[in-house]
Amino acid sequence: MIEQSKLEASIAKAAADVRANNPLAGSITNTVTIDFVANAQLAVGGSAAMVYLPDEGETLVAAGGAVYLNMGTLFPVYEETIPRTAAAAQAAGKPWVLDPVGIGIGSLRTQLIEAVHENPPAILRGNASEIIAVAELWGLAGDSSDDASGDGPRGVDSTDSVDAAERAAVACARFTGGAVAVSGATDLVTDGAQVARLSGGSPLMTCITGSGCSLGGVAAVYACVADPFVAALTATAVYNLAGLRAAEACSGSGSFQVAFLDALYNLTAEEVAEAPLILTGASGTQAL
Amino acid sequence: MIEQSKLEASIAKAAADVRANNPLAGSITNTVTIDFVANAQLAVGGSAAMVYLPDEGETLVAAGGAVYLNMGTLFPVYEETIPRTAAAAQAAGKPWVLDPVGIGIGSLRTQLIEAVHENPPAILRGNASEIIAVAELWGLAGDSSDDASGDGPRGVDSTDSVDAAERAAVACARFTGGAVAVSGATDLVTDGAQVARLSGGSPLMTCITGSGCSLGGVAAVYACVADPFVAALTATAVYNLAGLRAAEACSGSGSFQVAFLDALYNLTAEEVAEAPLILTGASGTQAL
Amino acid sequence: MIEQSKLEASIAKAAADVRANNPLAGSITNTVTIDFVANAQLAVGGSAAMVYLPDEGETLVAAGGAVYLNMGTLFPVYEETIPRTAAAAQAAGKPWVLDPVGIGIGSLRTQLIEAVHENPPAILRGNASEIIAVAELWGLAGDSSDDASGDGPRGVDSTDSVDAAERAAVACARFTGGAVAVSGATDLVTDGAQVARLSGGSPLMTCITGSGCSLGGVAAVYACVADPFVAALTATAVYNLAGLRAAEACSGSGSFQVAFLDALYNLTAEEVAEAPLILTGASGTQAL
Repeated sequence: MIEQSKLEASIAKAAADVRANNPLAGSITNTVTIDFVANAQLAVGGSAAMVYLPDEGETLVAAGGAVYLNMGTLFPVYEETIPRTAAAAQAAGKPWVLDPVGIGIGSLRTQLIEAVHENPPAILRGNASEIIAVAELWGLAGDSSDDASGDGPRGVDSTDSVDAAERAAVACARFTGGAVAVSGATDLVTDGAQVARLSGGSPLMTCITGSGCSLGGVAAVYACVADPFVAALTATAVYNLAGLRAAEACSGSGSFQVAFLDALYNLTAEEVAEAPLILTGASGTQAL
Repeated sequence: MIEQSKLEASIAKAAADVRANNPLAGSITNTVTIDFVANAQLAVGGSAAMVYLPDEGETLVAAGGAVYLNMGTLFPVYEETIPRTAAAAQAAGKPWVLDPVGIGIGSLRTQLIEAVHENPPAILRGNASEIIAVAELWGLAGDSSDDASGDGPRGVDSTDSVDAAERAAVACARFTGGAVAVSGATDLVTDGAQVARLSGGSPLMTCITGSGCSLGGVAAVYACVADPFVAALTATAVYNLAGLRAAEACSGSGSFQVAFLDALYNLTAEEVAEAPLILTGASGTQAL
Repeated sequence: MIEQSKLEASIAKAAADVRANNPLAGSITNTVTIDFVANAQLAVGGSAAMVYLPDEGETLVAAGGAVYLNMGTLFPVYEETIPRTAAAAQAAGKPWVLDPVGIGIGSLRTQLIEAVHENPPAILRGNASEIIAVAELWGLAGDSSDDASGDGPRGVDSTDSVDAAERAAVACARFTGGAVAVSGATDLVTDGAQVARLSGGSPLMTCITGSGCSLGGVAAVYACVADPFVAALTATAVYNLAGLRAAEACSGSGSFQVAFLDALYNLTAEEVAEAPLILTGASGTQAL
């Protein structure tokens, strides 16, 4: 168990180290929010590069400190690119971040989530429905199917609550040995042993596209300089603070996105360390 | 013939219903303006999801209330995705919106416009040149080729006036049984029986990319809750008001786009119902 | 040798002619910054159209005054699209602009840069590392490999200084018979005989994605109305002025991008002609 004060110091250090070292986290990410992902990564102090082809995914692994794989808009070539990039990250011992956007929409998505089971991500991030769906696909949902929210496509909008995804998140984190971040009104981040709940943000984050996707990209940037749990916490804390600040400064969803990037750009490591965070042990330890 | 006051009430209801119900209109749309389409759909109160693969297009039809197909940047896989998605919409009895951006640039575009002829869109939207070109490809241009503006590519900028496209728009609407929206300095929307002309907007809408594409996406959102004519009118009215408001608030094309999304986000149903609209019977009824 | 005053008059004329004539420069460009490229082209007064397919690239050549090919995010179909579009431009005697983003990441990038060697670009633009890498791939680096910055991927961030790329830039310009623009703290533009150094801009330009990509797209717009050297100079001057102006008006990287587009939109030809520019003869004339 990590003490909260120690965790806050690690979060501040991650935020500061990214500003100091400008680490590269390459992405294979969806075309809807690809520029927002890149601009968010740059705003917190990281570097960005996006590709689609299999050998280019492998090169990004070699060139960067972490890699971000987002399933939002799949191209046919991803059938090869995603598994090869995940395997390259595993082989290189580098963390990668998975955002299973749109899990359940189409067969290739399901196939790819299943394929990366053998080279699992250091950080899995999504909304509650997506995390529950991944746990099911990876056979981690257990006998108790209380969490299950039905079959069929789970779109970009969550139909489950963050608390309903806690068991699935803990199970995924224990399987991957990394961290899982569940986005919602209150966010949940777990490493399988501890569960942190982080508040802040703004309802306006659901009125723009890409707040989740870009959080994944920013988590990958922090994973270049910190362990997966700290990286996921830092990204989530940064997003909650930036969301709060941007909501105060904006006059609609358009100016919210602009103010959000400004806030990411201006946040200091000290401010990030003070983001509200409640830490507990993971519940259901025996059952899982 | 629908009375104007009744139409205005329907427009207000469509605007309000989208805010209340957050309907999903999935898109297969171009990469240039894909985030603007999504952000505009979210700003008016809808939900967005974008895909490229054939079975994913079909899933979007099943998951949403309408679908938006925009031809702006074709990928090879669209040869299968576009016809299958249009067919799925037809089979499910769900409306789909076609934006034939760049019609005439390349053989696949022509092939796809011809292919969807058998599963026609509930709403066709484009600039005058694009609507005339679609009418020609669908064999609806008639003997009188006064409207024809020559062969060769018709790019993203219209070389024809909105009035010159009226006959083509009416013919397309009668063929599809839905609505056609023609964008220009004054916009024209028709269901084949009536023609509405809507003013407003701003010349700045041609100084940013995506005002047309995102109008199509927003029309698809309204088509989830209203008939095609009302949906096309509501989207056009909303765009004219937002364009006016954004032009007052901006200091260039960059801040215009931000202010435009803010205006979409802030417009009320009452304001939308008061957008200037002139309704007449469709001319050339006999000839077509 | 062109006199500086004559060059400044040509720059002002290029800026004014684009505003007056709204020329189309089509693009095959990366998905990360594709909307920024289009919006920047529109903001300076040009027209934009983006495609991916081979025959559509050829159509864009025929329809526009110049074409922009950016290697940022390659799709498999580019193996055919890029060489065919470059060949079409060469055959039509129309200028095209190459941005070799991410040269060294993957085999297709290398293959495509080598393939266009036989139909070279009128304007080559990139950061110092990219220009040096192109000179090497085209066999123009000479015996002296002082400039070489090692093997392996050269990402979106330059690891070489602009001055270190001068020899490579001059060599490339002499080979293509056009111009080369190297972006950095101070920018360098050469036609192989003369070298211009331009200052201005802002460090914030490296905190957003796409300032380089969109510069390439804007250079293509100016190449519709001016020779390659003047077009590259005009684009670079415009970017330096807009960067300066936007940095004064913003409160972070998000609002910087918005203010940057506003500045592009508002800059006058007279202002552009007054951008700081130092002109010298190309050094190392004998050696190359």
